[in-house]
Amino acid sequence: MYDVKVERTSAPKQKPLDESKLGFGTIFTDHMLMIEYDKGQGWHDARIVPYGPIAMDPAAMCLHYGQEIFEGMKAYRGDDGSVYLFRPQENFKRLNSSCERMCIPQMDEELLLESLKMLVELDSGWIPAAKDSSLYIRPFIIATEPKLGVKSSDSYLYMVLLSPSGPYYPSGLDPVKIYVEQSYVRSVRGGTGMVKTGGNYAAALKAQDEAHEQDYSQVLWLDGVERKYIEEVGAMNMFFVLGDEVVTPALLGSILPGITRKSVIEMLRSWGMKVSERRISIDEVAEAYKNGQLKEAFGTGTAAVISPVGELKHGDLVMTINGGKIGPVSQRLYDALTAIQWGRAEDPFGWRVKVK
Amino acid sequence: MYDVKVERTSAPKQKPLDESKLGFGTIFTDHMLMIEYDKGQGWHDARIVPYGPIAMDPAAMCLHYGQEIFEGMKAYRGDDGSVYLFRPQENFKRLNSSCERMCIPQMDEELLLESLKMLVELDSGWIPAAKDSSLYIRPFIIATEPKLGVKSSDSYLYMVLLSPSGPYYPSGLDPVKIYVEQSYVRSVRGGTGMVKTGGNYAAALKAQDEAHEQDYSQVLWLDGVERKYIEEVGAMNMFFVLGDEVVTPALLGSILPGITRKSVIEMLRSWGMKVSERRISIDEVAEAYKNGQLKEAFGTGTAAVISPVGELKHGDLVMTINGGKIGPVSQRLYDALTAIQWGRAEDPFGWRVKVK
Repeated sequence: MYDVKVERTSAPKQKPLDESKLGFGTIFTDHMLMIEYDKGQGWHDARIVPYGPIAMDPAAMCLHYGQEIFEGMKAYRGDDGSVYLFRPQENFKRLNSSCERMCIPQMDEELLLESLKMLVELDSGWIPAAKDSSLYIRPFIIATEPKLGVKSSDSYLYMVLLSPSGPYYPSGLDPVKIYVEQSYVRSVRGGTGMVKTGGNYAAALKAQDEAHEQDYSQVLWLDGVERKYIEEVGAMNMFFVLGDEVVTPALLGSILPGITRKSVIEMLRSWGMKVSERRISIDEVAEAYKNGQLKEAFGTGTAAVISPVGELKHGDLVMTINGGKIGPVSQRLYDALTAIQWGRAEDPFGWRVKVK
Repeated sequence: MYDVKVERTSAPKQKPLDESKLGFGTIFTDHMLMIEYDKGQGWHDARIVPYGPIAMDPAAMCLHYGQEIFEGMKAYRGDDGSVYLFRPQENFKRLNSSCERMCIPQMDEELLLESLKMLVELDSGWIPAAKDSSLYIRPFIIATEPKLGVKSSDSYLYMVLLSPSGPYYPSGLDPVKIYVEQSYVRSVRGGTGMVKTGGNYAAALKAQDEAHEQDYSQVLWLDGVERKYIEEVGAMNMFFVLGDEVVTPALLGSILPGITRKSVIEMLRSWGMKVSERRISIDEVAEAYKNGQLKEAFGTGTAAVISPVGELKHGDLVMTINGGKIGPVSQRLYDALTAIQWGRAEDPFGWRVKVK
C-alpha cells in the first residue's frame, strides 16, 4: 500500500446540474492529486488535496522551456453504478515513455494507478451518468525548478485533475470535415511527435485556428520530410478503410502511439479483419477515392473514441466519404469500444479496470 | 505615458555579495512586471509588483499545451554608472512575431519598452558591475485559461523577470567543444523553429543531456529534412569563417532569427567583410576543414554574445578549429559588441538604448 495523504475539502463545490451542458475539460472536481520530485530525493509526498490554484515561481522552467508532459484518460460510470477505467496501465506506460524523451525522471506505474484510483473513488460523485459523458482524467508533469539556464529541471510536480465532461465533439458521431494541411508541420522523426508534450500541441494551434476559420474541425497532418505520408489528424490517430483493408500509419517516431489506436487494431483483428500499420500517402488515399475503394475514414482518440470523417479535402480535391455518413466499421468500433468502457458488454480483452 | 502601476516591495532582498559567483538565471531581483490579457478586454493592468510566486490554476493551458513564448535580453552597467539596453526594439518585434505563430494576441511594442525601462530603473541597484556580468532580462507570455480542450487560450499573462547574471559560460571566451547531432532533430520548416517558444527548448534537452555526458557543451543541429544542412547550435546561431567568407545559415523558417546574429552580420559588413546568409551543409564545412579553409567557427546569442567553437565533431571526424583557440574574427566581434553594449565605445549603429 502506498502512502498517499488525503486532505478532504471543507467546502465541496456545487456539481453541474445539467449534465447535457458539461462541455469538455472546463469543470473540475473537488480534489486533485500531487506528487513532487526533487533531485536527490526522488518522487515524494503523494497527496490528495482540495482543487485550487498552485503557487508557482514565475521562473519555473515549465513556463519558459516547455518541459512538460501529460496523459488523457477517462473514468466511466456503468449502469449499475460501477466505475471503470480503460487500460490505465497503458497510459502510465506511455507517461514514462514521454518522461524518458523529455528528460523527466520516470515514475512508479503502480503508485500512479493506485493513487489515481483513490482520487477517482473520492470524487466518484462527480462522474456523470448522461450518455457519452464521463470523467475526463488529466495526469501531467511540469518542470518546477526556478532557473533560466536551459537544462533539464531538478524538480518536478506530477498532478492529476478530474473533469466531468460531455462528448468531445458536441455533434457526437456526426462525421467531421477535415483538410490536408499543406503549410504547417506537426512533427518530424527525431523530434517529439511520439510523446505527449505541450510543444506538439502549441505547434498545432495555428493550423487548427485556420481550419476553424474555414469551417473545418481539424487538419490532417502530413510527414515533415516528404510532405506526402499521412501522420495523424488533430489530436487523433487516423484510419482508412480501403476496400477490405483497414490502414493506419505505422509508428515511425513522429506520431503518437494512441491507446484507442492500439485497441482499435486489436479489436478489428479479433473480428478477423485485415489491418495494416504502414506508410500511407495522401496520393494513395486520393487514388482509392477515385477508384471507389475509400470506404471509410475515422480518427481515434481517448476524448472522441471514434470520430468519422465525412469530408476530406486535399487541395482542390474534395473527397466525400461514405456519403458524408458514418460507415459500418466506424459504427461497430464505436459501439463495441464504448460498450466495454461503460461496462455494458463482456470484456474479452481484459481492458477494463474497476475502481469500485 | 502608459499607465503602469508600481507596488514597491516592503522587504528588499539581500543583493549578491560576491558578483563573481552569480551564475546564470538563478537569482531574481526585488520586482517583476505583469500585464494581463483577457478576450474582449485586450491587454490590461500593467503593473510592477514585488517578485514572488504567482497563483496558477493547475488547468492553465500553458502547463498542458505549451502555449508560451519568451525573449532574452540584458541590461548593462557602464563604467560611468549609466544603464543600457541593446536593441530592445528588436526583441519586442520578435516577441510579436512569436505571438503571431503561436496564436497569442500581439502587444504594443512601445508599452513593452516603456514598462521594461521602468522595471529596470526600479531594480537598477541589482545590475552587477563585475566584468562580463549583466542583468539578464526575461520577458515571457503564458496561456492561462483553465481549460483542457486543445485550442488557443482566451487569457494570457505577460511577465518580465530580472536576474543579475555572470557569463553564460563560466569558462568565458574559452572555445567550446560541440558535436553534430545525428539522431535528434530540433525543428523542421513548417514547425516552430523560428520563434522562441518553450517546445523548441524542451525538444532539445535530450540531445543536450547526452552531449554533456560525453563532455561536449552543445550539439550542432542539422535540418530535419535532408539531415545535412546546418541549422543552429544549442541556443545560438552559428557562423563559419571559410577562407575570407563568413557564412551563416539563411533564415528559412526553422532557425531562430537571433538579434546577436543580425548585429554580427551588420558589424562584419561594416568592416568590409564578405558575409553570406545561405544554406551550408556539414559536408561543406568538413571539406573546408580538410582544405585548411575552415578558419573559425562561433555561435552567437544574447546570453553568451560570441562563443567560439574549438572542436567540432562529426561522426568520426574531429575538427580542431584554429588550434582550439579563439580566432581573430571571433575576438574582434566579441570586443566590439561588448564595448557597444557596456557603453565603452561609440555606437555608430544606434543599437544602444539608455535607461538612465
